Amino acid sequence: MAKRIFNFNAGPSALPLPVLEEIQSEFLDFKGSGMSITEISHRSAAFDEVIDTAIARVKRLLNLGDDYEVLFIQGGASMQFCMIPMNLGVAGKPVDYVNTGTWSTKAIKEAQIQGIETRVLASSEDKNFSYIPYDVKEDGNAAYLHLTSNNTIKGTQWAKFPDTNGVPLICDMSSDFLSRPVDVKPFGMIYGGAQKNIGPAGAAMVIIRKDMLERTPKNIPTFLRYTTFSEKNSMFNTPPCFVIYVTGLVLKWIEETIGGLESMDKRNTEKADMLYNYFDSSDFYKGTAEKDSRSKMNVTFRLPSEELEKKFVAEALKADLGGLKGHRSVGGCRASIYNATSLEAVKALVDFMADFEKKEG
Amino acid sequence: MAKRIFNFNAGPSALPLPVLEEIQSEFLDFKGSGMSITEISHRSAAFDEVIDTAIARVKRLLNLGDDYEVLFIQGGASMQFCMIPMNLGVAGKPVDYVNTGTWSTKAIKEAQIQGIETRVLASSEDKNFSYIPYDVKEDGNAAYLHLTSNNTIKGTQWAKFPDTNGVPLICDMSSDFLSRPVDVKPFGMIYGGAQKNIGPAGAAMVIIRKDMLERTPKNIPTFLRYTTFSEKNSMFNTPPCFVIYVTGLVLKWIEETIGGLESMDKRNTEKADMLYNYFDSSDFYKGTAEKDSRSKMNVTFRLPSEELEKKFVAEALKADLGGLKGHRSVGGCRASIYNATSLEAVKALVDFMADFEKKEG
Repeated sequence: MAKRIFNFNAGPSALPLPVLEEIQSEFLDFKGSGMSITEISHRSAAFDEVIDTAIARVKRLLNLGDDYEVLFIQGGASMQFCMIPMNLGVAGKPVDYVNTGTWSTKAIKEAQIQGIETRVLASSEDKNFSYIPYDVKEDGNAAYLHLTSNNTIKGTQWAKFPDTNGVPLICDMSSDFLSRPVDVKPFGMIYGGAQKNIGPAGAAMVIIRKDMLERTPKNIPTFLRYTTFSEKNSMFNTPPCFVIYVTGLVLKWIEETIGGLESMDKRNTEKADMLYNYFDSSDFYKGTAEKDSRSKMNVTFRLPSEELEKKFVAEALKADLGGLKGHRSVGGCRASIYNATSLEAVKALVDFMADFEKKEG
Repeated sequence: MAKRIFNFNAGPSALPLPVLEEIQSEFLDFKGSGMSITEISHRSAAFDEVIDTAIARVKRLLNLGDDYEVLFIQGGASMQFCMIPMNLGVAGKPVDYVNTGTWSTKAIKEAQIQGIETRVLASSEDKNFSYIPYDVKEDGNAAYLHLTSNNTIKGTQWAKFPDTNGVPLICDMSSDFLSRPVDVKPFGMIYGGAQKNIGPAGAAMVIIRKDMLERTPKNIPTFLRYTTFSEKNSMFNTPPCFVIYVTGLVLKWIEETIGGLESMDKRNTEKADMLYNYFDSSDFYKGTAEKDSRSKMNVTFRLPSEELEKKFVAEALKADLGGLKGHRSVGGCRASIYNATSLEAVKALVDFMADFEKKEG
């Protein structure tokens, strides 16, 4: 038996054990081909089935109609930060953003670099990004409105998306992708790096409404155009085959083992509640996000001192609870409890926290 | 025992069996971490060691001095086609290319899209790209001269690189990367998609001379700047961790099992010679590349009729020799015999070819 710890990494992060076991078991011989999944051609019927099945699962999970395309693009969300204004800006219109932390800030910067008029409609920077600025006033004149649905570093998440006054919503869902049901109607585009909720690092999944594709200018580099990917089923060039394959297995697990996004959300809510309820009953641990903005994915908290935080992270690791250190830019502690994190893992963490509090509190 | 075939795919393609076995054996528990390599943080000491070791191996294999950086960038060579003119063009200077087939043609197109004066100094299009136009006259005025060292589709390869008159050479080595020793002195940059000779699909390796980095303009998107990657050891954002990990294992295999690039070249030459010598003694199989331009990586050949070619590919697969169909744009047959392809595989192919000729010739 392989040693396995409870993994609370912020990304790359835990994958479902049955998925890892399936990859391992067929790693030298993918579906009787006599080749590893890493060795088969992306121009083969076998790989077509891998990518087409993954796309069909996303479409079923999110109830996507034929008006949406599902693409895999290398470069993660950071590549999308630059592709979005380049492809989806509209001459004469500003692009709108809400700033809820590090990742929004980076997305905003990439629109500005391109010389596009960029409006920040709302921001929670005044309180160190500890809340979601739900009161967004969109005047309806923008090419798009961009949000970050979950903020990995500050532990906040949009519980409800704002009214956009008809402007297409573009949403970076990197850290809560497919963790809960989403009504896709207001969204012109949803995207996310795979490496948190749906797979390993090395691709972003991009869900884009077909009318948005008509905006892509013809004079930008081929590899930076969404149409390059939509016209070739994400295989203009060799795609990140292994990432797509693993993502497909995680999607299968969400659909068939968990039972879809309603069940996924129920499980994720139960996990988050266990932790937040514990904080709320403790004077030792303090959540850093405001209550109406708490993330179900990244639970950020502080202990009474930095010294205790360091000790907490180190002793937790000794007890096989890994990845609990906060992001290097903010310090503190963080438990990332994405889709693949089990209830059992969160229970073990709460038990450990209680013991630690008893000893050190 | 897993079923394994002899894999002549053009990319993604065969990986060394010991590498695949090592990945499989530690897939649930990477180096005692209790996590899969796909689950560990890229900001961990364990991953730093993975990427730093891979880079150190490339530096040793190619005798790179401290004046070169080794980067991993997502998007494969196609992403590089657009990053190169964007980053390494110089105001007032043209960029030069040699056109040796599909991939060069794509690279040229991306420079032209950006409105940069693009000169094609030599081309083998007149004879359907069946040869390398060795006679390149570089006047010394260009920002760079771009070549494709090996042409996967047409089966040609530069046996010797041209004199560049002091202009930095930029070379797409996607399909012969680390397959032979290279004197890096004339090269401002060498790059290649990982998925042929050194790893799975999902990253390009970029070897760039530090003075070239000074050319990067400050007003281009962050993710498209080489300096973004050089300043952060390829970890500005989450890198394609699994691809870098596997590439590191293939590099270890080249260095420690094969014994370096001289030995790698010797083995690759022996494999290619077996096939070409067989063609030259046969009236049934005909190589498509001119003799002084033959690729040691992709051996392209024709049979007397398309019907026979189809039969050849199908019967070969039945005999566990896979991936022998030529590229869909040119037809015919192709045996890709990259680093990981064994002598045993090539011997089995030659035996099969002889049997097939006896039966059908």
